[in-house]
This record gives sequence, structure tokens and C-alpha cells, in this order.
Amino acid sequence: MALLVYSGGLDSTVMLYKYAAESRADAAVGINYGQRHIKELEMARWNCSKLNIPFFDVDLSSISGIFGDSSLMSKSSSMPEGSYNEAGMKATVVPNRNMIMIAVAAARAISLGCDSVAYAAHGGDHAIYPDCRPDFVKALAEVLKICDYSPIRLEAPFLNFSKADIVLEGARLGVDFSKTWSCYKGGDIHCGKCGTCVERRQAFASAGVCDPTEYEI
Amino acid sequence: MALLVYSGGLDSTVMLYKYAAESRADAAVGINYGQRHIKELEMARWNCSKLNIPFFDVDLSSISGIFGDSSLMSKSSSMPEGSYNEAGMKATVVPNRNMIMIAVAAARAISLGCDSVAYAAHGGDHAIYPDCRPDFVKALAEVLKICDYSPIRLEAPFLNFSKADIVLEGARLGVDFSKTWSCYKGGDIHCGKCGTCVERRQAFASAGVCDPTEYEI
Repeated sequence: MALLVYSGGLDSTVMLYKYAAESRADAAVGINYGQRHIKELEMARWNCSKLNIPFFDVDLSSISGIFGDSSLMSKSSSMPEGSYNEAGMKATVVPNRNMIMIAVAAARAISLGCDSVAYAAHGGDHAIYPDCRPDFVKALAEVLKICDYSPIRLEAPFLNFSKADIVLEGARLGVDFSKTWSCYKGGDIHCGKCGTCVERRQAFASAGVCDPTEYEI
Repeated sequence: MALLVYSGGLDSTVMLYKYAAESRADAAVGINYGQRHIKELEMARWNCSKLNIPFFDVDLSSISGIFGDSSLMSKSSSMPEGSYNEAGMKATVVPNRNMIMIAVAAARAISLGCDSVAYAAHGGDHAIYPDCRPDFVKALAEVLKICDYSPIRLEAPFLNFSKADIVLEGARLGVDFSKTWSCYKGGDIHCGKCGTCVERRQAFASAGVCDPTEYEI
């Protein structure tokens, strides 16, 4: 059984539905690391409640200062707009975030008796985020194998999926995409302009799936 | 330059002095994970202040619930006494603690611009704690190499030291051992009976170094 690192974003919500469909979702952990778009965790709670999967909210907001200057954290810095391919998007990198989230999830998995931890890194993240790359996932998997008396397996089922592939998978699984959150700005509705909104819109368009998201623009 | 994972315990205090002597201690992070023996962090602050090394206190106490039932965390459970070799000492294992601390330290190192993270796992820890074993350190080092745009080096300078070797090294470096904390019970003075007190006393005896620690017994 698996413990899912679950943010309430599009990718990890599809992962939640996939594991639920396979009866492999033991529980999910959502991590508050001081992100501006904390709204994503409301979506996480909503989906877990719908699927009847226990959701653990882990509050790491007290350590948000260690991450330095990422625009993902600070309400005062401006959020870069445009596509993920642009250099400005590097400003949204939160250093070593995934290693911290997976380390925390593994601790929770050990104490719950789960044998796997899953997270939703995907192909489209590779270019910008060092901690979403296949080599990183592979190295981290080696650590989890030996971090406790019994091995913990790290799974990243979307590592070779594009975001459009994930949208297609979600449509197949009956995900209500309006109950997922992407926008890094953390407003009341998706801005439609920041890197993750642009990526989200493009993914629906490429997949040919109707996008139910309400955007500001 | 290195960022040190620094608890205020005997091992990591000797490491702090070693890095300071080599002019390689950029800063230190102490982590409050809800441990009973939070007193160790007072020692950490004292030694960093003496050596003029910036000390960052990272408060992870809000997540102490994820660790389950370790007797290291809970004031209500009893602390096993006797040597580290006894099965009861497994009750003091905090699952995946070192991976979390190193992941957090790496994030801090990246935001400070340090190129290394050091922690004080040593030979005597191997039998009980999965996350102090050489293979674990090696696997974690591979993760840190690729967790960011520039590699972070993981150092564990005492991995092949016994605790007696560390005491000898500390004596050579002029460490004031009375300003280090080991006891897991977290009382006003060291109990002298819990696993880590027994290990501490044996290390001084083996090393032939005078032990300035005040014990209850």
C-alpha cells in the first residue's frame, strides 16, 4: 500500500485517482511549506474526502524561511508570467522541496506501515526543476530502500508522462479538474498567466480535453 | 564551505570544532523535531556562539506527530535503559529523522550558497539506526549531488570513527565536553542510565579521557 505525496494540484490529483482505482491509496500527505497557493491543500482535502482516503496535513510553514527567496513563497516578490521554458521561471524553484516532502512522507509511511511512497513528478517538470528529474527520482529511491528496517519503495508513475498525458489519464479516471489547483499566485481563481497556469491550459488543449478551470483572463 | 547539521550532542560538537579548526564551518543548523532532550540545542547555541559560527534553529516541532511512537519524542513513554546493543533501544529510533534533517539542511545550504552539508553519523550508530549506516550515507550523497543546479557534497567525517575516537578527537581540539548534551531523558543533568548515557560514559572510559559530565547516578 502506498502513501501519496498529494498537493491538490492537477498532477497529484490524477495520481490520487489512479491509486484509488487500483485500491493502492493507503493515505495521502499534503505539505504546507509556506506556499502562496495554499489553496491547493483545500482541493487535496476535498478530493481525499470524496474518495474516502485519509489525508494528513503536515505543517512545515515554520521553516519557510530556510528556502530563501523563491517567488513561490513570498507575497512581496512578483510572480513570473509566461511559459515554463523561460529563465524567469527559475525564480519559482523552492530549493530541495521534493526531497524534504518525500523524506517527511517516508517517515509517515514508516509509522503507518506503508511500503511505498508515490509522488507525481512528470516529464514536463524536468527542464526547470532539478528535483523532478529521472536521475533524482532514481537516487532518492535508493535512499528510501534503506532508510528503515524494511525497504520503502519510491514510485513516480508519471515520470515519463507529459502533462497532456496526465490530463488524458485524469479524464479517463473521471477526475473533476475544477477541484484541482495549479496557479502559483494563490488568488481566488486561476490567473491564467503564470507559468503553471500557461502549462495547465496548454495541457488541456493538447489533450483535447475540455478545461473547466475559471481563469482571470 | 560547509553547513553542519548540529544537535549540540557530543559527536556533532566535536565535528563543529573540527570544521572550525579547518576554517570550513560556514554555519550550523539545529533541528527541533520535538525531541525530549531539547536541551541539546542550548548546548549547540552556546558552542556556536563561542566559535562565532552562525546557528540556525529550524523548528520542525509541528510535525513531531508524523514520527509515530518513538520514546525519544514522547514524555509519556518510558526511556529504555542499558546499552545500545539491546533490542529495547530500537524504541528510540525516530523514523527517517536523518533524511529529513539532511534534506532541510541541504535546502538551507542551497539558499546560503554552501557547497557541502556535514553530519556526524559514526561507527557506533550503525547497528541500531538504519539512517546512520555507510550505505545510507552513500545513497544520500548521490541525491545531494543532483538535488540542485550545483552539486551539494554530503560529508560524514566520523563514519568510520568509534565514539571513543570522537572523544579523543574532541580532546585534541579542546572541546569543553561539559557543554555537550547526550541524555535522551532530557532532565536537568544526564541520567547516566539510558542508552546514550551508557555509550557516552563508555566512550570516555575507552578513550582514557576525563569525563566532566555530571550524572544522576
